[in-house]
Amino acid sequence: MGGDFGPCVTVPASLQALASNLQLHLLLVGDPAAISPLLAKADPVLLERLQVVPAESVIAGDAKPSQAIRASRGTSMRMALELIKTGEAQACVSAGNTGALMGLAKMLIKPLKGIERPALMTVLPNQQLSKTVVLDLGANVACDSTMLVQFAIMGAVMAEDVVGIAQPRVALLNIGEEESKGLDNIREAAAVLKQIPAINYIGYLEGNDLLTGKTDVLVCDGFVGNVTLKTMEGVIRVFLSLLKSSGGGGKQAWWLTLLGRWLQKRVLKRFGHLNPDQYNGACLLGLRGTVIKSHGAANPRAFAVAIEQAVQAVQRQVPDRIAARLEAVLPKSD
Amino acid sequence: MGGDFGPCVTVPASLQALASNLQLHLLLVGDPAAISPLLAKADPVLLERLQVVPAESVIAGDAKPSQAIRASRGTSMRMALELIKTGEAQACVSAGNTGALMGLAKMLIKPLKGIERPALMTVLPNQQLSKTVVLDLGANVACDSTMLVQFAIMGAVMAEDVVGIAQPRVALLNIGEEESKGLDNIREAAAVLKQIPAINYIGYLEGNDLLTGKTDVLVCDGFVGNVTLKTMEGVIRVFLSLLKSSGGGGKQAWWLTLLGRWLQKRVLKRFGHLNPDQYNGACLLGLRGTVIKSHGAANPRAFAVAIEQAVQAVQRQVPDRIAARLEAVLPKSD
Repeated sequence: MGGDFGPCVTVPASLQALASNLQLHLLLVGDPAAISPLLAKADPVLLERLQVVPAESVIAGDAKPSQAIRASRGTSMRMALELIKTGEAQACVSAGNTGALMGLAKMLIKPLKGIERPALMTVLPNQQLSKTVVLDLGANVACDSTMLVQFAIMGAVMAEDVVGIAQPRVALLNIGEEESKGLDNIREAAAVLKQIPAINYIGYLEGNDLLTGKTDVLVCDGFVGNVTLKTMEGVIRVFLSLLKSSGGGGKQAWWLTLLGRWLQKRVLKRFGHLNPDQYNGACLLGLRGTVIKSHGAANPRAFAVAIEQAVQAVQRQVPDRIAARLEAVLPKSD
Repeated sequence: MGGDFGPCVTVPASLQALASNLQLHLLLVGDPAAISPLLAKADPVLLERLQVVPAESVIAGDAKPSQAIRASRGTSMRMALELIKTGEAQACVSAGNTGALMGLAKMLIKPLKGIERPALMTVLPNQQLSKTVVLDLGANVACDSTMLVQFAIMGAVMAEDVVGIAQPRVALLNIGEEESKGLDNIREAAAVLKQIPAINYIGYLEGNDLLTGKTDVLVCDGFVGNVTLKTMEGVIRVFLSLLKSSGGGGKQAWWLTLLGRWLQKRVLKRFGHLNPDQYNGACLLGLRGTVIKSHGAANPRAFAVAIEQAVQAVQRQVPDRIAARLEAVLPKSD
């Protein structure tokens, strides 16, 4: 029910995801009156793996998370998360209120042992045609060094087990590469990470290295991560829109316009892997289950990508692997 | 002497700037043995407006600012700033060690009355074909609400008096547009800015609005500003390099390759105003003089842009105008 467009996006996306993944089963939690009409023309074969779970109410996208959580009983978001708790679902995907989703997920699904606060993580494409795991993207506006270290460990597990990079490089996002740079919590986290042999810590990186592929995991607090990711998305959108508008217009022969459009399409293709739609879906890492937050403005294709992310996280058993790594890496408490 | 390339960039840039601005006089402070050979083939007419001021030593780009400042006597950076203090120069442009430049500038040139800490500011192009003033870009890693309010006032003066926007819109960079979002210092600054009638405060904006032109002034702390700007630059460089490499290659007729390059050039032209070289030069606002920090990796064209920024700041009397606005806006202390 969530996101800027509600079922108009999530239902077609669900049908897309079912069509492209024959193992997938989906439970659509929400208002049947809003969902069912969108299923009317769907392929009946797909509908065999889809079930509508009626929910009475919806958490508004602009609701204050603390209030929304208090009054969450019976909402589609809470019911979806409860399906994980009861074992009826293995993952939850939502484009709804981020704060409410994180709060409810933490309350219902519980953090893993050794995790203070879950973090929002996404996997970005990079210039080396590989991927970079970035976290936290906004689950925690302020982070101490312990949290940053935990994020680094979780990010390394994602890079190794989901992206498939052996001994992934881990860096902290900072405003300079020298050791003395930045904020206290970052410098403290650097000192701890250097002492963990299981983590391939490579030092600080700056914002301009977000897409260069110099690291496999990039760690920052949730405020900085959120601003960084949104800045990147904003710049990419400006570029794509300039690119799209640069084909036609002006006084030129019709054949030049046609040829221009053709060449422009080729160029756009090269940028395809950087299009924000392609890597939609931030994973809430550090919980005993899989919860994916889709961009609120996602279109059906982008929301389908978020569903596919959930599938991968379940298949690779991300929560279990993180728990095992934490157990191995962090000092034993008694 | 500063930056990644030293006089190899700054001297040709100086000659470019002198050629394009006939009122400009430049003092090149540094090692004559490194500077003079680069002037050997210069037009003698330009050299009439250029003078080499010998300096014994140089602050290394990677020196720790606190140590560099302590041992700064006789360095090119300090001598250049002292020329402002003595009135022999009206502005200083440097591509050197940012921390040392800010520390020395504050020590030698002094902040304006009412300013706790100077801020690094730059003027970015935006999608509306206007400009956006962004600060702080890294002068202060942590900022309290008072500093953010001062940055907002200084940014508004820049937007009005240098960019030429009447009643410039002022926004705070945050991770959401709702009032309850973000960190305490940002929320407190918002509360204060709302109460200042002379400031056209419009609320919070997110990172994706950096280039959309929804605001004329965007205010944040130095850590976030630095990461944001560098992220933007990094993404733009990735795009420009992809764009440049998308012309040739592959198996195709020669005429298609030629035509492709021609069209690609047209596209690149459209992105010209977003090329980081075009808006190089961050101004250290809040001092009783003009100090411009160029990107360390600037090429001659980009460094010449930074010199031109200094000229504009001097012509528009930015320090005086900021002082006058602070006097008018801030509550009188006694």
